[in-house]
Amino acid sequence: MTFQSMWAELLPLGRSSASGGYRRFAWTGADAECREWFREQAEARGLAYEVDRNGNQWAWLGDPAAGDAVVTGSHLDSVPDGGAFDGPLGVVSSFAALDELSRRGVEFTKPLALVNFGDEEGARFGLACVGSRLTAGELTVEQAHRLTDADGVSLPRAMEAAGYDPDAIGADPERLARIGAFVELHVEQGRALDLSGDRVGIASAIWPHGRWRFDFRGEANHAGTTRLVDRRDPMLSYAETVLAARREAELAGAVATFGKIAVEPNGVNAIPSLVRGWLDSRAADQHTLDLVVTGVEKAAREYAAAHGVDLDVVRESFTPVVEFDHALRDELARILGKDTDLRVPVLGTGAGHDAGILSGRIPTAMLFVRNPTGVSHSPAEHAAEDDCVAGVLALADVLEGLACR
Amino acid sequence: MTFQSMWAELLPLGRSSASGGYRRFAWTGADAECREWFREQAEARGLAYEVDRNGNQWAWLGDPAAGDAVVTGSHLDSVPDGGAFDGPLGVVSSFAALDELSRRGVEFTKPLALVNFGDEEGARFGLACVGSRLTAGELTVEQAHRLTDADGVSLPRAMEAAGYDPDAIGADPERLARIGAFVELHVEQGRALDLSGDRVGIASAIWPHGRWRFDFRGEANHAGTTRLVDRRDPMLSYAETVLAARREAELAGAVATFGKIAVEPNGVNAIPSLVRGWLDSRAADQHTLDLVVTGVEKAAREYAAAHGVDLDVVRESFTPVVEFDHALRDELARILGKDTDLRVPVLGTGAGHDAGILSGRIPTAMLFVRNPTGVSHSPAEHAAEDDCVAGVLALADVLEGLACR
Repeated sequence: MTFQSMWAELLPLGRSSASGGYRRFAWTGADAECREWFREQAEARGLAYEVDRNGNQWAWLGDPAAGDAVVTGSHLDSVPDGGAFDGPLGVVSSFAALDELSRRGVEFTKPLALVNFGDEEGARFGLACVGSRLTAGELTVEQAHRLTDADGVSLPRAMEAAGYDPDAIGADPERLARIGAFVELHVEQGRALDLSGDRVGIASAIWPHGRWRFDFRGEANHAGTTRLVDRRDPMLSYAETVLAARREAELAGAVATFGKIAVEPNGVNAIPSLVRGWLDSRAADQHTLDLVVTGVEKAAREYAAAHGVDLDVVRESFTPVVEFDHALRDELARILGKDTDLRVPVLGTGAGHDAGILSGRIPTAMLFVRNPTGVSHSPAEHAAEDDCVAGVLALADVLEGLACR
Repeated sequence: MTFQSMWAELLPLGRSSASGGYRRFAWTGADAECREWFREQAEARGLAYEVDRNGNQWAWLGDPAAGDAVVTGSHLDSVPDGGAFDGPLGVVSSFAALDELSRRGVEFTKPLALVNFGDEEGARFGLACVGSRLTAGELTVEQAHRLTDADGVSLPRAMEAAGYDPDAIGADPERLARIGAFVELHVEQGRALDLSGDRVGIASAIWPHGRWRFDFRGEANHAGTTRLVDRRDPMLSYAETVLAARREAELAGAVATFGKIAVEPNGVNAIPSLVRGWLDSRAADQHTLDLVVTGVEKAAREYAAAHGVDLDVVRESFTPVVEFDHALRDELARILGKDTDLRVPVLGTGAGHDAGILSGRIPTAMLFVRNPTGVSHSPAEHAAEDDCVAGVLALADVLEGLACR
């Protein structure tokens, strides 16, 4: 199958007709359709298909037990109303790169695997990269069992409903020990390649980033009859905190976003009892990120106190700065540098990835494909077909260079 | 049945074990249970039970066709996580007042009816007083058919699913023509009676009030990789508008509240494409309310423009100032004034009621029962049993005075 035909097959799965975006949330029907597609692609190529204890899908060429495997892949799930490229481009490109190497008739000297990591976006349970975190031992079984979705369904129950065994989950060091290198191809989620005029780039580092939940608790009351002075309205403190986050991020040259909110009781004529807002913040280094988040929290506490509102701040997830393996990064640059037509810049990113999680355990690298608008996590996310094909060829070169040497 | 035993029967219906508040939304299972309770109470007393074309429930004593009927009642539905008293106190007190008059052995010279109006709170379809608005012709059939809930279920489909005929809905002037007076008893939703030390009050007027929907549309994008200068983040304009509403209301001596919000895609790591906030605002007079809402909208447009965000403002509902019928109000004061132990102040309110909707068509009046904290639309809403009993006796006196003269 060509890149284009694989892409066309995957395109309608889990797509919302209302928004045109994707709602491929972990362990839902749309997720199952994507996973079935992965299994079919693996089997159509005669690859050895398996699902690991954490629900990640693998397709092997060669003997996994031989060790020093070269692995590539990404994820197929999406944020709410996400785009078509974030995740799937890496998975489809993996299969397409394998097909390209088959055409080239190369002989692999190492085992090769393609992977689809489960629940990368964390759209359903609020924690990103659950599949790779579990495998890497960065998320304990107890922590995973406590995750629940907006309807109160726990991760174990959701996995069970999707036909997986939640009692099997946990760290998987033997699996990681078999991997010599992991390379994830991903659409760029900014405009760096577009601004520099390049099709493909190599990742240098992932900014440290995290999610903080701000629970502002006031008192529910009638919006028509409660005097302003008698109110303890948490929406006011929330609003002030949203603006404080923007100011702190601007001052620090970082980013900070309140993109998700949950309000109780969320009635037009009721002062809220609870406004829960999630802060996503990232910066080029740890010190800067600390400054931003500390500043936002300090401001929020002052606003809450002024309104008689209680505030709890919980850090829900955190990923320190990830410097990708320098030796592997240089090897990728060397391999791709052989093609004199392709200039491959090295760039950092504010987005988290499974590659970032795994980089603490095994040598990992990332390839980025140009995003002409920089738009991501949106139905408008896009990459030109020419650039996608350039990404496939670059990935094929990398796999050939790593697995055939 | 005593007031207390009726109260105890109704108490568990539609109650959330999580919040302790009520989720009795129109045409849901919890609503059906409350309606079944009303039917049983009517039939247990040998009253003639009927449901009108708009789904409002009626229980008649005497011949409706005789005209000049005296009607009392309220509603049984709730806001999200509402209290036990807002609505049900008026319905339960109606049955209890009838029982009291039965004990007194009074002879009615006019027909008497008890009523439970459907969908007063508007919690599900976003418009308050749907049952009385339809009956009064204040809401057209076309407008009602366009109402949808958060899941996209239309009002007609919801009525149908609950076993009612949505094709029958519409203005009901013949029914209103049979009514000589409507009296609604309601828990006070402020602290005026508590501050004056009175158990029961008579309504003078309902403040003009309305709901405006603010749709801030920006561009969904990745929260980690999109530079602040490239963002069109509608959450920022929303936050600024929330604070502007508070300032405008403070300046004008009015109230303004953003208590409900809907965000798309509502992901932690996504800049929102849409932030939809609902403004509820009320003031003692029309001019003041206009000033507040105009001021908020003007500020919101400036904020939106500054962030490259589009703004639509839609007035979803509006109720002008309601001056209750002066003759009926004076009659209530005269009747209750005979009891020298009961001082009955006359007070205004910022809350809307079915009585306010009907006041444009028939003489209406309201009785308020003391609320010691003023808290309403909250699980903490409360009224003391002694005050509730005083309300029942006052309502019985009023019904006797109006229907036995």
